[in-house]
Amino acid sequence: MQKRDRLRIWTEQGNVTISQLFFSHYKAINIRDEEAILLLHLIAYGEAGIHFPTPQNLVERTYFSEDKVVTILQRLMQKGLIQIEQHLDQNGIHYEYYAFHQLWELLVDYMEQQQNDVKDLRSKEEEG
Amino acid sequence: MQKRDRLRIWTEQGNVTISQLFFSHYKAINIRDEEAILLLHLIAYGEAGIHFPTPQNLVERTYFSEDKVVTILQRLMQKGLIQIEQHLDQNGIHYEYYAFHQLWELLVDYMEQQQNDVKDLRSKEEEG
Amino acid sequence: MQKRDRLRIWTEQGNVTISQLFFSHYKAINIRDEEAILLLHLIAYGEAGIHFPTPQNLVERTYFSEDKVVTILQRLMQKGLIQIEQHLDQNGIHYEYYAFHQLWELLVDYMEQQQNDVKDLRSKEEEG
Amino acid sequence: MQKRDRLRIWTEQGNVTISQLFFSHYKAINIRDEEAILLLHLIAYGEAGIHFPTPQNLVERTYFSEDKVVTILQRLMQKGLIQIEQHLDQNGIHYEYYAFHQLWELLVDYMEQQQNDVKDLRSKEEEG
Repeated sequence: MQKRDRLRIWTEQGNVTISQLFFSHYKAINIRDEEAILLLHLIAYGEAGIHFPTPQNLVERTYFSEDKVVTILQRLMQKGLIQIEQHLDQNGIHYEYYAFHQLWELLVDYMEQQQNDVKDLRSKEEEG
Repeated sequence: MQKRDRLRIWTEQGNVTISQLFFSHYKAINIRDEEAILLLHLIAYGEAGIHFPTPQNLVERTYFSEDKVVTILQRLMQKGLIQIEQHLDQNGIHYEYYAFHQLWELLVDYMEQQQNDVKDLRSKEEEG
Repeated sequence: MQKRDRLRIWTEQGNVTISQLFFSHYKAINIRDEEAILLLHLIAYGEAGIHFPTPQNLVERTYFSEDKVVTILQRLMQKGLIQIEQHLDQNGIHYEYYAFHQLWELLVDYMEQQQNDVKDLRSKEEEG
Repeated sequence: MQKRDRLRIWTEQGNVTISQLFFSHYKAINIRDEEAILLLHLIAYGEAGIHFPTPQNLVERTYFSEDKVVTILQRLMQKGLIQIEQHLDQNGIHYEYYAFHQLWELLVDYMEQQQNDVKDLRSKEEEG
């Protein structure tokens, strides 16, 4: 194994890109740490082309039991943080995937609310 | 609040980029889920320019107590997954930061070992 | 120089993250290739913490002359693709930076228009 | 079209992640601006799952003619910046893809050389 191979191993794995908003505010929108790590795994699988990972896929990458994974996934869906949606591929076959857009909207909702609160506070201060 | 503002809120937050290697193999190198989420927070703070977040910074973004955060940080250092290093800035002032390069090396070590195991197995099969 | 140093050099440089929308549709919104590469350099400098690179900074990283850089920057501003905005930092000092939110909005405008065109076409086909 | 749709359009497009090293040093390793933008398009296509885009694919996204694209691709291969490699997919079918690892190695080579030059200079100064 030559030294050049190590950089190649690294660069060929690809990356997962996540908004800073997720890390800075998931707690503020009531996402627990164990839900956060599972969301990140779902996103990572998605970016690697596996858009509907099974509970078993998630068990392989974490220390959670399969029961625990299923429980957390159900909670994420009940909270409206992930949705199972359907797509039609080029061969006319339906496939399911986890969609995260509702999660991103909730994070932006929270930021908007924060900015409005700051504006309200400033208005009140000026009115004195 | 107009619709254009929401996209701006999103794009101005910036991103955190993490190798797929981390998600696919942190468990394999004995990083627990609670250690993984804290590592991700350290990396996210770093990419946002806060290279030496305090335990209190981490308490603000997670459900961990400060004691728990300190315990996990110590464990990450004992395992050699993070190091505290020093830099000299442009004004000649020393500042500390968390370095992650040892973590990335361990993940690549693991991949190398896996690839070598596959090669050994193939050689044995051919010798059969 | 040991092999481990190479991976460290790589990982310590940081990344630039750009929406696929930019690459797939900059031509559609009339951004020329030479404008695209300069926009990418502005974004890369921004993500590295240099939010208002000078023409000279851009000359160092490209084969463009300073005159050419200035001409392209002016064109990007006239087209409304970049704006110079002001921020107040923690010490009360104003600093300027290039803002790209208008560029992202134009790319999304284009995608919206495309999707509406497809819907209109389908409606007409159904009406037959 | 509601305001929430715009954020969804944005987040569903995915991102392209490129090392800062590319932007800061492609000129230093003799990559021209027109080669740089084409390399970025190849990388963007690859991250979107199209690992062997045709010259026509590149014509669609740039202002280059097909002849020009072919000429630049050939020059990139002659310079050893991209390679055409083969993979065997899960169904036993060979497919070709553009590999960039040699490009990343050249960028790291350049950084190593720079760091060694700095060390040599310091040694000489100390010897005085």
